[in-house]
Amino acid sequence: MEQLKNKIPVGILGATGSVGQKFIELLDGHPWFKITALGASERSVGKLYKHAANWFQTKSIPTRVANMVVSRCEPDLPCRIVFSGLDAAVAGPIEEAFAEAGYIVISNAKNHRMSEDVPLLVPDINPDHLTLIEQQKYKGKIVTNPNCSTTGLVMALKPLDDTFGLDKVSVVTMQALSGAGYPGVSSLDIIDNMIPYIDGEEEKMQIETLKILGELKDGKVEFSDLVLSAQCNRVPVINGHMESVSLSFKKPAKKEEIIRVWKEYRSEPQKLGLPFAPDPVIYYFDDSRFPQPRLHRELGNGMAISIGRLRDCAILDYKFTVLSHNTVRGAAGGAILNAELLVAKGYYED
Amino acid sequence: MEQLKNKIPVGILGATGSVGQKFIELLDGHPWFKITALGASERSVGKLYKHAANWFQTKSIPTRVANMVVSRCEPDLPCRIVFSGLDAAVAGPIEEAFAEAGYIVISNAKNHRMSEDVPLLVPDINPDHLTLIEQQKYKGKIVTNPNCSTTGLVMALKPLDDTFGLDKVSVVTMQALSGAGYPGVSSLDIIDNMIPYIDGEEEKMQIETLKILGELKDGKVEFSDLVLSAQCNRVPVINGHMESVSLSFKKPAKKEEIIRVWKEYRSEPQKLGLPFAPDPVIYYFDDSRFPQPRLHRELGNGMAISIGRLRDCAILDYKFTVLSHNTVRGAAGGAILNAELLVAKGYYED
Amino acid sequence: MEQLKNKIPVGILGATGSVGQKFIELLDGHPWFKITALGASERSVGKLYKHAANWFQTKSIPTRVANMVVSRCEPDLPCRIVFSGLDAAVAGPIEEAFAEAGYIVISNAKNHRMSEDVPLLVPDINPDHLTLIEQQKYKGKIVTNPNCSTTGLVMALKPLDDTFGLDKVSVVTMQALSGAGYPGVSSLDIIDNMIPYIDGEEEKMQIETLKILGELKDGKVEFSDLVLSAQCNRVPVINGHMESVSLSFKKPAKKEEIIRVWKEYRSEPQKLGLPFAPDPVIYYFDDSRFPQPRLHRELGNGMAISIGRLRDCAILDYKFTVLSHNTVRGAAGGAILNAELLVAKGYYED
Amino acid sequence: MEQLKNKIPVGILGATGSVGQKFIELLDGHPWFKITALGASERSVGKLYKHAANWFQTKSIPTRVANMVVSRCEPDLPCRIVFSGLDAAVAGPIEEAFAEAGYIVISNAKNHRMSEDVPLLVPDINPDHLTLIEQQKYKGKIVTNPNCSTTGLVMALKPLDDTFGLDKVSVVTMQALSGAGYPGVSSLDIIDNMIPYIDGEEEKMQIETLKILGELKDGKVEFSDLVLSAQCNRVPVINGHMESVSLSFKKPAKKEEIIRVWKEYRSEPQKLGLPFAPDPVIYYFDDSRFPQPRLHRELGNGMAISIGRLRDCAILDYKFTVLSHNTVRGAAGGAILNAELLVAKGYYED
Repeated sequence: MEQLKNKIPVGILGATGSVGQKFIELLDGHPWFKITALGASERSVGKLYKHAANWFQTKSIPTRVANMVVSRCEPDLPCRIVFSGLDAAVAGPIEEAFAEAGYIVISNAKNHRMSEDVPLLVPDINPDHLTLIEQQKYKGKIVTNPNCSTTGLVMALKPLDDTFGLDKVSVVTMQALSGAGYPGVSSLDIIDNMIPYIDGEEEKMQIETLKILGELKDGKVEFSDLVLSAQCNRVPVINGHMESVSLSFKKPAKKEEIIRVWKEYRSEPQKLGLPFAPDPVIYYFDDSRFPQPRLHRELGNGMAISIGRLRDCAILDYKFTVLSHNTVRGAAGGAILNAELLVAKGYYED
Repeated sequence: MEQLKNKIPVGILGATGSVGQKFIELLDGHPWFKITALGASERSVGKLYKHAANWFQTKSIPTRVANMVVSRCEPDLPCRIVFSGLDAAVAGPIEEAFAEAGYIVISNAKNHRMSEDVPLLVPDINPDHLTLIEQQKYKGKIVTNPNCSTTGLVMALKPLDDTFGLDKVSVVTMQALSGAGYPGVSSLDIIDNMIPYIDGEEEKMQIETLKILGELKDGKVEFSDLVLSAQCNRVPVINGHMESVSLSFKKPAKKEEIIRVWKEYRSEPQKLGLPFAPDPVIYYFDDSRFPQPRLHRELGNGMAISIGRLRDCAILDYKFTVLSHNTVRGAAGGAILNAELLVAKGYYED
Repeated sequence: MEQLKNKIPVGILGATGSVGQKFIELLDGHPWFKITALGASERSVGKLYKHAANWFQTKSIPTRVANMVVSRCEPDLPCRIVFSGLDAAVAGPIEEAFAEAGYIVISNAKNHRMSEDVPLLVPDINPDHLTLIEQQKYKGKIVTNPNCSTTGLVMALKPLDDTFGLDKVSVVTMQALSGAGYPGVSSLDIIDNMIPYIDGEEEKMQIETLKILGELKDGKVEFSDLVLSAQCNRVPVINGHMESVSLSFKKPAKKEEIIRVWKEYRSEPQKLGLPFAPDPVIYYFDDSRFPQPRLHRELGNGMAISIGRLRDCAILDYKFTVLSHNTVRGAAGGAILNAELLVAKGYYED
Repeated sequence: MEQLKNKIPVGILGATGSVGQKFIELLDGHPWFKITALGASERSVGKLYKHAANWFQTKSIPTRVANMVVSRCEPDLPCRIVFSGLDAAVAGPIEEAFAEAGYIVISNAKNHRMSEDVPLLVPDINPDHLTLIEQQKYKGKIVTNPNCSTTGLVMALKPLDDTFGLDKVSVVTMQALSGAGYPGVSSLDIIDNMIPYIDGEEEKMQIETLKILGELKDGKVEFSDLVLSAQCNRVPVINGHMESVSLSFKKPAKKEEIIRVWKEYRSEPQKLGLPFAPDPVIYYFDDSRFPQPRLHRELGNGMAISIGRLRDCAILDYKFTVLSHNTVRGAAGGAILNAELLVAKGYYED
């Protein structure tokens, strides 16, 4: 899909936070979207963005954005699409206010993910769920993306579920630090250490996966009946969630079939040629040492996932390792792909 | 058990390597054993130990050992017990030569672990397996301890197996760097990174656990019939293997019963008061954030294990996290406890 | 010096913070002092210490302290000596209130360090400065210890200053994370990274060093006239400040003399046999790779310093590397040694 | 400078090593150069590159190179320019053999750096030194780039030397792990640790800097007379050497002048528009916390340097912090810029 002649103006809610910064970094040079508004908390309002944000991304603040003035997170921003990187503590009512005022809210927050009429969307996995927004009462719309640890998992599972039918899935995560936001995890808690607990994470993985892999029937998502058990750990890695997965299928599956299904997987975003759609979606490595966060998290500009070590499991059928970039595919990049799908599907009109 | 009047002379095979150094560090001040011989490869023979070893432990080389001259690993050392920290590539024939010459070989190498007449010993778990040595054809004896990732697991499993009968166990490890020896893992491979693969580790965990939890019948170990699946990862932690475990039982088990069984577990080494026996054997934490390697690996002087987060599993019955110190309990310290049990059981005579 | 028959009751101000925790850890089993009071902020008052503190030391909370009830930081605690681990933001008036009420305040905070009548004390370096307290107007007393990066430096400098007369000192620090307190430095700021700035640190090093190395004349400290320049960096190390130092002398000094002066250095705490006095005070390493934080920070139970790599400097006379444990010698342990000196010198009476 | 119509064929010596891999990564898509030959040691000869190399860069092996067959490092390669990432242990004679056979050798090894007729070249700093090659007796030529820690330093110093005349420079480095090659530094030596020593590094910095800042007179380099003292440390950072510098000038210099001189610095590569020439050459940060390796090492695609914290020094005149990317600007990228300058200056003819 080519560059739009007139780019679509978009706003960022929670623009100074870590997800907000990632939105700004990733939207720089986007062929369809152009940032025209930055919303943040009272403390930042009225300041130039470069003075308001404690910017800590590896690329510099895009010059144009650096010199924009930060606004309140109130629904009078000069745009019709807003990306929300708001903290869950405040995201609920603010996002609703924007939706009621007619904005399309592309949210990374957890607050509306489980609402019946809100799509929990991964465009390569459940693009049809987007139609749920037609049932929303808002003048505008709310679309959400899942928790960062859920995203990598469902991307590995979906092609297999389609082909062999998933029965049981056991997953142990080794999650990156950026998933905890900034300042997030203290260095004293994680250097020469790891933490076997992330508050609320296992519950989110377990329920979100079932919704995303669920079937849309009569305008409702019928949750998947797969049985899922998650154990979540934090490890001293900056970016890139690793997951050790074991699973069983309803139908027989051969190792080479599974690998082929992963490698060949393409979906709506690839067909539509969405700017942020990776192709391939899934990299499979034959080298047992791979994937690794530092080496492979940037594949597909951080939007692809990487899998390796598929082998027999003595308890379930197979086990393997999957890696995804938690702040790109699992957060800001995933949300941008959601917005792209929504635009390509005609839900945005000038 | 008190200090022996005349300490038992012992030798270290592979004295300059990382396990050898740990033997020397842990045996310093041991109430029963006194190092009288250091064996290493040709390169080191004839040198003072302090010049031969690239010592990298946090405590200094014990002065007496520092000034000992390194010998060949040949069975003419002035002692009758040798601790072997030899690399698997050379351990096989050397250990056999010592055993044939009448030495008691307390080995940390994998070479003889699966031999029918060699005990794969964790004194708190399967002390009765020690009697296997009576069937050995050697003039001396060989006793082995398991792989470092196996040790922590069997210590968590044994009390439950005794009480509820284990059915299935799924384990995902997050293992420390010291387990790979020195220099081992390159810093470029592990800072801001992790590796989803450790060569041969999963196979070792899977088979060793069955032998250790096996029953001694008619002088033979009948392997446990539990079904075990292991996935092994390397993480940027210096010491302390963490494992995310899920399991099912043959009999019903309540959460509080499991925790009680762990907390109350005592075994032969505690009854005998062996110097390296921890008491308690198992620490259970109610705080969900625990155990953590840097905070809890030294509990019981590195000989106890730590468990936390016992909770229901949607696939098997329960899941939890276990931590053990891989170079103490999982290697040199475990081997020393093996030697202590052997002495306490009367297998060593002056 | 032996165990006291009746231990001296002491209190900890800021007991739940990171320095407060270190005081509790280090005072456990102290032959002279016994903790009888714990002061903390309103949030913790009335709770058992084990419930109030987010304890993150590697040893467990001493059982007796764990079950003590936390009090307000008000001068009605059942003791006459208090160790202050209070944050500088609140330490000033609280410490003064205690001093005025007759308490001996052993403070780790910066607030009173530069006051004319307050000793900035490192007992091995300037024990005579303790007499400054005789000029204090308080009913009680205030004694302070320097900033953690200053302590290691002055301990390396003092023996040389006594012997050769210091002229100029240039120091570049590479400081550990625990120096920033807890949670302190975000993991996202320091993994695969370092920070060339620590707020206020260079200024503190530059002025505190001159006071500590100053001469006591007519009841006043005449600051040292050495010229000092400091550059302070934060590196991803948990404990142990490293410093690259270059310096010039007023008198000629040979390399071997310098090393001898360091190795032979003993001072008042060693002569008095104070419980926390290290002996030797300074370790010198011939191996160019040493000292290193993880290997040598615990020497002398964290109270000794380590030096290596003394060599010619093309600009000044010599350069070398010094390491000290920043939370032991540079904070809580240093403060405890201050209290020990004060007691041994007869300033504490029952 | 635009894309060449027919790209210049180049070879890589030591193609499987860490510098060799970086050459391949950086030359992918280069507008002037095209890799046509890969030389490596006997072990790799005859294999496809993808099978011969243990590739560990974050981008994948460029497909065309992945499928090239590895050759011996003998002067019969199908190209006239070779980039040498050979280890110093073997680089000397191999590079000479190539030069004698008529090849232009762009070397990253230390072996010929100090030869009188070999330019030790940083094109932004001493482009005129390139003419030294005219005196070489070889049929071909050898051009070298300096040690990685030297490069960042001379780039910070040169603009100041030109304007104010350098007198004395004291530098303490905190160097990244990739500077030690692969596997290089063991993870056990550097996690929660640092090392105050890098073999030969201080000597290299001290002498190379004087040659690079030297003046070309009558076809010879007259070494700079500045007095330089270096202290080199290794820290747990993957890429990016940080240096704490203090210095004095021959002429008076104001802070704002120094910063202006840095910011405005442009040289031959910028004028010629060489593909790898950064513009700006030097970034200066007003924020005291900057530069930092993880945030700023990629500025100018890793070819620019970053400076911050310019402030008065009590001993010399000023002090500041400088950062450079050690494997890009300090190694493979610097060598490529050398080749670009050589081509642009007409030393390469088809």
